Amino acid sequence: MLVDLYEITMANGLLESGRRDMITYFDMFFRHVPDDGGFAIMAGLEQLIQYLESLSFSEEDIAYLEEQRLFSPAFLDYLRNFTFTCDVWAVPEGTPIFPGEPIVTVRGPAIQALLIETMVLLTVNHQSLIATKANRIVRAAQGRTVMEFGARRAHGYDGAVYGARAAFIGGCDSTSNVKAAMDFGIPSAGTMAHSWVQMFDDELIAFKTYARHYPDSCLLLVDTYNTLKSGIPNAIRAFNEEVLPRGFRPKGVRIDSGDITYLSKKARKLLDEAGFPDCEIVVSNALDEYLIRDMLMQGARVDGFGVGERLVTASSEAVFGGVYKLAAIEEAGKIVPKIKISENISKITLPCFKTSWRLFDRESGKAIADVVTLANEEIDDRQPYEIFDPNHSWKRKTVTNFIARRLQMQIAAGGKTVYQSPTAGEIRLYRQKQVETLWEEVQRFEKPHAYYVDLSRKLWEQRSALLERYSFDK
Amino acid sequence: MLVDLYEITMANGLLESGRRDMITYFDMFFRHVPDDGGFAIMAGLEQLIQYLESLSFSEEDIAYLEEQRLFSPAFLDYLRNFTFTCDVWAVPEGTPIFPGEPIVTVRGPAIQALLIETMVLLTVNHQSLIATKANRIVRAAQGRTVMEFGARRAHGYDGAVYGARAAFIGGCDSTSNVKAAMDFGIPSAGTMAHSWVQMFDDELIAFKTYARHYPDSCLLLVDTYNTLKSGIPNAIRAFNEEVLPRGFRPKGVRIDSGDITYLSKKARKLLDEAGFPDCEIVVSNALDEYLIRDMLMQGARVDGFGVGERLVTASSEAVFGGVYKLAAIEEAGKIVPKIKISENISKITLPCFKTSWRLFDRESGKAIADVVTLANEEIDDRQPYEIFDPNHSWKRKTVTNFIARRLQMQIAAGGKTVYQSPTAGEIRLYRQKQVETLWEEVQRFEKPHAYYVDLSRKLWEQRSALLERYSFDK
Repeated sequence: MLVDLYEITMANGLLESGRRDMITYFDMFFRHVPDDGGFAIMAGLEQLIQYLESLSFSEEDIAYLEEQRLFSPAFLDYLRNFTFTCDVWAVPEGTPIFPGEPIVTVRGPAIQALLIETMVLLTVNHQSLIATKANRIVRAAQGRTVMEFGARRAHGYDGAVYGARAAFIGGCDSTSNVKAAMDFGIPSAGTMAHSWVQMFDDELIAFKTYARHYPDSCLLLVDTYNTLKSGIPNAIRAFNEEVLPRGFRPKGVRIDSGDITYLSKKARKLLDEAGFPDCEIVVSNALDEYLIRDMLMQGARVDGFGVGERLVTASSEAVFGGVYKLAAIEEAGKIVPKIKISENISKITLPCFKTSWRLFDRESGKAIADVVTLANEEIDDRQPYEIFDPNHSWKRKTVTNFIARRLQMQIAAGGKTVYQSPTAGEIRLYRQKQVETLWEEVQRFEKPHAYYVDLSRKLWEQRSALLERYSFDK
Repeated sequence: MLVDLYEITMANGLLESGRRDMITYFDMFFRHVPDDGGFAIMAGLEQLIQYLESLSFSEEDIAYLEEQRLFSPAFLDYLRNFTFTCDVWAVPEGTPIFPGEPIVTVRGPAIQALLIETMVLLTVNHQSLIATKANRIVRAAQGRTVMEFGARRAHGYDGAVYGARAAFIGGCDSTSNVKAAMDFGIPSAGTMAHSWVQMFDDELIAFKTYARHYPDSCLLLVDTYNTLKSGIPNAIRAFNEEVLPRGFRPKGVRIDSGDITYLSKKARKLLDEAGFPDCEIVVSNALDEYLIRDMLMQGARVDGFGVGERLVTASSEAVFGGVYKLAAIEEAGKIVPKIKISENISKITLPCFKTSWRLFDRESGKAIADVVTLANEEIDDRQPYEIFDPNHSWKRKTVTNFIARRLQMQIAAGGKTVYQSPTAGEIRLYRQKQVETLWEEVQRFEKPHAYYVDLSRKLWEQRSALLERYSFDK
């Protein structure tokens, strides 16, 4: 029942007007990379598949809809016996994705393809948003550990749990969220809260008590009273008195307030002088990729970042604007392309039943461009292939010595799942390899190089013909 | 299991160090109103209560924790038989709340009070964020209908469903989210998608088919091809041919792209000329309070706003920064206040077991100030009462002719719920009345008047003494 009302009213209207089983083609795509980044990371597919597999309406749902007095008995009966029979294709999780290309494609009876709109978008928009943001933060951290700490500021429970999953896929090393760790096999991470320190008569007793119980994973929060004058000296004493005698090395200290760059340098010095050059400095406090980049530029001595609210809410740009649009219908067995014109040029849709390809340079392994084609086109990578800018078609380039790979995999056939989701850990590794195929220029935070997403000539011609047909005087 | 790992490691440490049942006092409060607004709206309490009522650990949870090799058998046994026994006080949902005052207060055994931190914060932070944003948008709409349309861009399923609930509490009139409508008794709203129009051979046939099935609630989306040259003229024809003959009046049209201010004026004129001055114009497209305010200032002719992504993600400031901090412990039956000092002044906490009051002017009914007091203090509103700025204690004011009301209600006593949550609709009405008690200056979007949240003299003295105790050289 997590659908928008209009999907149900339209579905009822389709059934009542005899168009229930008209075959339709829908694409999910997005128009803009959050934070003006060069690429996004696909995520959320596993949860989308689970949703499609369990799609049904309970008697309680039907009773509620009946009360609305909007729907015909035939339609409510249809929902009661609802079976999902669509074909679905999608780009695998962890893949870098770009504006304008179909990332999920659905083919099936109009009434079904309509009803899943909200869940397709909700699932993929949310996790792709967080995976994309996490990847930016991880790139800023330049190989240092990044821990996802955001549950308390997430937008609801699923926002926390699936947010942690997406953050891990995007590159975070661990999560503080125990449920997400358990459900998706993510390493869990945590330290202590200020309340621990406050509960004891003084900071040293608090540290020593903690160190005694966790000598092998002792990470102490040092900013409850004063980081350099109290926290670090007390931590060093606790390490010496409770960790070393038990045969362990201290794990680290965490700084959660103040000027972290300055404090981390001073803390590093104190820890080194005390014989703990291996004691890690972990920092937190509303961090994101911009703060992390600046701190490292200024020489902060940080080994790990705990990143919370700005990651789990993607607060710098909290919306991943994927949309789900009709691209074609079938009439008498023939595919008829459909377009939505708009006064906003960027809102004009790409018609036809499509698929997409990524071309990789055979020598460097780097991605050259994506090409959206008609679904039945093949790109033969043994031949030179001409790509061109769909908006400035005189900008052309002939690509040679390349490998063409399809971006979409079939997820469901006739409503049955035909795809086995990898584990979150496997997706994370795949994501890492795929991001490495992108040129550094595409990975830049500020004004990244715009990666090419081109159209095949056949697709471009079909789009041009439809645009012409619906042209109006301005 | 939606907890942060450190809560479990600290809980285990408390049990192992014999501090499991030490009585602690925790407050949830926030430091900053999103969007630099003058106040926030409390929300999420009903879901927090449900969580506290169902708090337990399954054998699967215990097995997972056991595998982590961090926790003692005694602690795992404790979790297996976990019973929540804390006292909880909270500000009712729908109440305007201000930075620095306790909005949730928990009293109970340290180990329990610690474990609920993440869920208290997650639940109240999320819904308060969305209720606050919704209220801003609704105020900008100046009495016009506001529909929540955001499910597809929410951060996960709960983000959509509880987001819709919070938006309704904040003032939205309806939601497109059928699950939220069903679960919380919110009016549902919806129109049609572009895909409906595209599925038919032309726009007129699409409109006429829809009008025939929904003559009594016919709201047509008019921007699929060209709003003024195609959409509105076709809508008028469909209204005349399919709605009027069935004895109904058309409900409205929706514009989702282009320059909405301009288009709404032109559309209004066309509809009026066609004899439909009662046909509503509903608009959508990444709206928020700023856009709505500007559109209305420029004379847009809009009857209803569909607000989606910028509401459900609170994208202008996507974080509600509520925190949960130790305020006191009991030692030998005596309450010992606790403080967290910080190099960031704003991160210093307010010690002691506290409650809060709102003072209303007896004549105007307007809120004058909030006062945070020790829990056992009473404010006698038959006597003049001196309030003063806690940071500039020479700024004083004696209040007379006022009513003092406690802001917090008891929610749980000894772990048992003692509070009956009102329905979302009742909360929405209460919220409306409470916001009306705020002076217009506090409701302003830009640089609102800073509402006073003062401390009682006793509380201020206790805080000052603790600050003195932990002072360090800078």
